[in-house]
Amino acid sequence: MAAERAYLDYNASAPLLDKAKAAMLAVLESPGNASSVHGEGRAKRAVIDRARNHVAQLCNASPDNVVFTSGATEAASTLLTPEYRMGRGSLVIGHLYVLASDHPCLLGGGHFAADQITQLPVDVDGLINVEALKTELGRRSKDDGQAIVACHFANNESGVIQPVADISAVVKDAGGLLVVDAVQAAGRLEIDIEALGADFLILSSHKIGGPQGAGAIVSATDLLMPAPLVTGGGQEKGHRAGTENVAAIAGFGEAAVIAGERLGGIEAVRNLRDRFEAALRAHIADVIIVADEAPRLANTSLFIIPGLKTETAQIAFDLAGIALSAGSACSSGKVGDSHVLAAMGLGSHGSALRLSIGAETGEKELVMFQKAVQGIAERRAEKGKAA
Amino acid sequence: MAAERAYLDYNASAPLLDKAKAAMLAVLESPGNASSVHGEGRAKRAVIDRARNHVAQLCNASPDNVVFTSGATEAASTLLTPEYRMGRGSLVIGHLYVLASDHPCLLGGGHFAADQITQLPVDVDGLINVEALKTELGRRSKDDGQAIVACHFANNESGVIQPVADISAVVKDAGGLLVVDAVQAAGRLEIDIEALGADFLILSSHKIGGPQGAGAIVSATDLLMPAPLVTGGGQEKGHRAGTENVAAIAGFGEAAVIAGERLGGIEAVRNLRDRFEAALRAHIADVIIVADEAPRLANTSLFIIPGLKTETAQIAFDLAGIALSAGSACSSGKVGDSHVLAAMGLGSHGSALRLSIGAETGEKELVMFQKAVQGIAERRAEKGKAA
Repeated sequence: MAAERAYLDYNASAPLLDKAKAAMLAVLESPGNASSVHGEGRAKRAVIDRARNHVAQLCNASPDNVVFTSGATEAASTLLTPEYRMGRGSLVIGHLYVLASDHPCLLGGGHFAADQITQLPVDVDGLINVEALKTELGRRSKDDGQAIVACHFANNESGVIQPVADISAVVKDAGGLLVVDAVQAAGRLEIDIEALGADFLILSSHKIGGPQGAGAIVSATDLLMPAPLVTGGGQEKGHRAGTENVAAIAGFGEAAVIAGERLGGIEAVRNLRDRFEAALRAHIADVIIVADEAPRLANTSLFIIPGLKTETAQIAFDLAGIALSAGSACSSGKVGDSHVLAAMGLGSHGSALRLSIGAETGEKELVMFQKAVQGIAERRAEKGKAA
Repeated sequence: MAAERAYLDYNASAPLLDKAKAAMLAVLESPGNASSVHGEGRAKRAVIDRARNHVAQLCNASPDNVVFTSGATEAASTLLTPEYRMGRGSLVIGHLYVLASDHPCLLGGGHFAADQITQLPVDVDGLINVEALKTELGRRSKDDGQAIVACHFANNESGVIQPVADISAVVKDAGGLLVVDAVQAAGRLEIDIEALGADFLILSSHKIGGPQGAGAIVSATDLLMPAPLVTGGGQEKGHRAGTENVAAIAGFGEAAVIAGERLGGIEAVRNLRDRFEAALRAHIADVIIVADEAPRLANTSLFIIPGLKTETAQIAFDLAGIALSAGSACSSGKVGDSHVLAAMGLGSHGSALRLSIGAETGEKELVMFQKAVQGIAERRAEKGKAA
């Protein structure tokens, strides 16, 4: 790798925050299983409780309603199941609705059978059609069983923000449940589980500067919960078995505190992101900034350079020291067509690159990006002449 | 907590090895998602591949057949499902057999229905009756579907070692599948997936000096695999979705190397463990060392002090600076009756304490333990006089 690097892939994984790292190191210093009753065990338990409070605060939720998982994908796999429990009784969910531009961990439908899953379309701006959802849910009869709707708050590729409160109103009206993937929203948008009207939120530690290996299900109540996915011991009040990853949870908790604090500085991130986009527009006149008129996260830009293959562009950026992604990172290093672009009807325009920044991004990264874009534009112009 | 502590609870969670910690820190230094194709992503991927080799070597398995999970419990929950895949086809498992003394993550039966699970008894030494297993499996007809047998290699509470190769011969003869929980065996017994005749092994990082938050399914082939539990992205060749916890996996890999190396020093651990037991016998004439005549792990001792409540004993040890457990740690800080003791027919003798040591345990810990045992014995004698 080049000595100087500009890491512009926060939506794939943000750099670990110093405070999160310090919290992890403190945990790693001493042995102990959080379920052990001796002093070492109780110390670990206290660390988890502290982190639980911090994660709850980020969502205006009760700490009692935070279940730690190994990550957002596990949280989604746990929530996307027909088997729920209401207190001691069981509840079978009849159908799952997802957005066509959802993250693969929702889009895959979890543990629902293929014929129990409906994909809802999004428009050219990547937004759900709330009326269409209403019609779709209205078609269901009582015999069809309860419906669950799972959607992202903010899109991981485009940054597009869904009108979650409006979605919730429609879902509640139809007697359904709402799962909100708030992974990319955390630290960038205010997350209030009550105001959003979500039954469940999904959070990830490593997208907000915590370590990889922790995530959470945050629920509106603890009465209604999915049947546990990971079974065995009684950890997490029976909702998630297995020895807790205390170090990762500790780091997640610290990152949650900082994510809340950083909301105050989000306009500075937006201004910087806009300067990255200005650099693209300055050098590449026909660049398409996806959903640039739609409500978008302040830190994300998904752009298409017409005629340029994603692989080629990504390699060119990488050689120039710039780390950015071709859409989502979640398919084992493969650069494929983006289902998000396809869902927005933009698949034919070519493939896209995503830059996503954070509070640590600054002028150095911008200058490197400007230079890289200029180089790509020049080679593109030469190729155009030659052709 | 007392300033001086003796940590004797390795089977709950071993102290983090320096090399494992160093490997984690190296990963935490730089950002990146192992699925990203840029330089940062590829560097993370290389770390995972290296760890995969190390974990495979520990079991004499192929790196292609190692699937990383968030821990052993997730691995067990993944394997204990009726839904398997043979290549692109699907295979439905008809019945699960577990040992009555298995760890809760097996004993709970994972995703099998209650009527699909049979608990096999163990004898007073905690050992399976292989002939009884043969009879049990022989009762099945072809219409009953394939059977899966899940058992521990070494027991987490008593350290008792099951005759896995004998179990395998019976299971294979009956056309079944064998899942072996090798969590406590790792670093203490040689683990050769082929010699054991296991179809799947379960491993945990934090029981061998790696960090919490990593585990693995090691399989004999990659043709036959359980349907994924955690679904979404294409990580781990589709067997386990979700961003990899690269730091934890890196630490796990280093711990696996050291676990292999430390097998050479296991007799020293056994000698030390025997001196702990000698201290118990010296001060408490009627102490019961569970399964002391059976094949046992070198590092583990499960003992019963007749008439003394586990809670009382555990608190006394804790106040004396000694961390040990009342059986398994896996039930959220509760001190309950041990199902392992009950399965061995020893439940009526009272409840038990487990000490479990490792390569770092030495004279300091032994002296502290001797002193604590002496104190407990003296108070017990006084109480006996008063009564």
